[in-house]
Amino acid sequence: MSKTVGIIGLGLLGGSLAKALKAYTDYDVVGYARRQEVCDAALQDGVVSQAWTEVEPLIEHSDIVVFSLPPDTNARLFTEVAHLFKPSQVVTDVSSAKENFVRAVYESIPKGTFFVSVHPMAGSEKGGYEVSHKNLFKGMGWIVLEDKASDVYNEEVAKELADMGRAVGSRIEFVDVYAHDAYLAMVSHMPHLIAAILTQVSGGDELGELRMRLSAGGFRDCTRVAGGLPSMWREIIYGNRHNVLEGLSKMEDEIRRVKEILSQEDEGQALEDYLHRSRDVRNKLPYLTGQIKNN
Amino acid sequence: MSKTVGIIGLGLLGGSLAKALKAYTDYDVVGYARRQEVCDAALQDGVVSQAWTEVEPLIEHSDIVVFSLPPDTNARLFTEVAHLFKPSQVVTDVSSAKENFVRAVYESIPKGTFFVSVHPMAGSEKGGYEVSHKNLFKGMGWIVLEDKASDVYNEEVAKELADMGRAVGSRIEFVDVYAHDAYLAMVSHMPHLIAAILTQVSGGDELGELRMRLSAGGFRDCTRVAGGLPSMWREIIYGNRHNVLEGLSKMEDEIRRVKEILSQEDEGQALEDYLHRSRDVRNKLPYLTGQIKNN
Repeated sequence: MSKTVGIIGLGLLGGSLAKALKAYTDYDVVGYARRQEVCDAALQDGVVSQAWTEVEPLIEHSDIVVFSLPPDTNARLFTEVAHLFKPSQVVTDVSSAKENFVRAVYESIPKGTFFVSVHPMAGSEKGGYEVSHKNLFKGMGWIVLEDKASDVYNEEVAKELADMGRAVGSRIEFVDVYAHDAYLAMVSHMPHLIAAILTQVSGGDELGELRMRLSAGGFRDCTRVAGGLPSMWREIIYGNRHNVLEGLSKMEDEIRRVKEILSQEDEGQALEDYLHRSRDVRNKLPYLTGQIKNN
Repeated sequence: MSKTVGIIGLGLLGGSLAKALKAYTDYDVVGYARRQEVCDAALQDGVVSQAWTEVEPLIEHSDIVVFSLPPDTNARLFTEVAHLFKPSQVVTDVSSAKENFVRAVYESIPKGTFFVSVHPMAGSEKGGYEVSHKNLFKGMGWIVLEDKASDVYNEEVAKELADMGRAVGSRIEFVDVYAHDAYLAMVSHMPHLIAAILTQVSGGDELGELRMRLSAGGFRDCTRVAGGLPSMWREIIYGNRHNVLEGLSKMEDEIRRVKEILSQEDEGQALEDYLHRSRDVRNKLPYLTGQIKNN
């Protein structure tokens, strides 16, 4: 009999995972959503075999429980329901920032229950079950977080969750759980803030409306993530603020460096060299080719 | 008999303009390209009726001459060929930064020749005739630069160039020629540098390759323009560096402000408010709906 995966939260990420597991694996998938309409929609779409507006039955029926709510909400909920988990059951989550959830799990997980965190590197500035789709993870990274020194970590579970990522089309990366948030601050959380900052600098003052009319595709894409859900990104960024602050300081240092480059009387040669280096870095992004656009 | 538009430079912008004018207007279109292969391709595609690897015959045969090379290259070329223009002939350009070209034109344009600059707000991180297409301008802004105090500016010419923008599907904006570069620094040139800076901060050091493997669609889009042609962007940004430096200073001020917000012990409330304001600004971008994606 195939194992049951229970997904807590059927938003963009949880809903897409449910759809992808249904489409590309043999897992039985069940779900929790706060709103009955979302449960009904997922049942009607046939992506879950059962859905509840309470988490208790989901935990009872699942071999693998995936927390797919915003990071702090996941953490608070886990603390409440930790006592319901049984030995050999697997807890995982798909959050973008790990510190608070990992701490909550390590504090209250019952003996014998396993925990391996994963982070599918996929998302969109739009959220909700309506925009979820089975190919959200195709061609994207799927990080499995290692903590080999911990009792709750289990190699076989890690392997199973990596296989799950492969099955939904992702590239697998193994990363140490304690290094994860620092890396993510630099490639996701700090860039998100930079997009929000850029939006306000260029569009937030009395000339902003005119400037926005004069902007084009470059500005649109640079600032796309600033359209993301504020309540969700608040939890991600604030929960990882020490790393994000460090990233912002690095941006400040680099902006100072580029201001010096612009001030040189060299007809822009140093600037061209700088732009070349940036382009070389960016052209190596692993998902620039053969990737399904998720937005 | 329909007027002839001569396009100097058949790259992404010039090539797309030739294709759009051919598809959506009655203008006869002729072209100049440095390389014979590009002339041949444009002739074979039927987007120009004649093409040369020298500019002199193009100027001789055109009623409206569009400079579509990078801004400083346009400026140098204009200075060389200014004496060839005749009264009532129209000079225009499609550069992203205007200061150097406008100065070159005002210095050497013959008496009676008209000059009205336009700036189609369209582009891509890829360049060249191969990627040009007739719908590049659809739904995008098309700025007509006004300089009503100048002898070479002409209202009827401005109206004709605005109509040309409408014909290829753009929204028309009229902007004072001396204000243009300051606006564009804030919505295009400075954001371009921020994308390049972000790329190097996140991907340029010894951990960069690993971090790039952990990045996703948000990072891809925030940094898309950093894939642009360094030699072209050097001319645009360095030519407008006084305004760009001011924009970078504003970014520094705002980053400082956001670092204070992140340091507040308020569980992220001020951060969420900040993200809300950014989202509100961004959601008002005029081209977010009903626009053809150009990349």
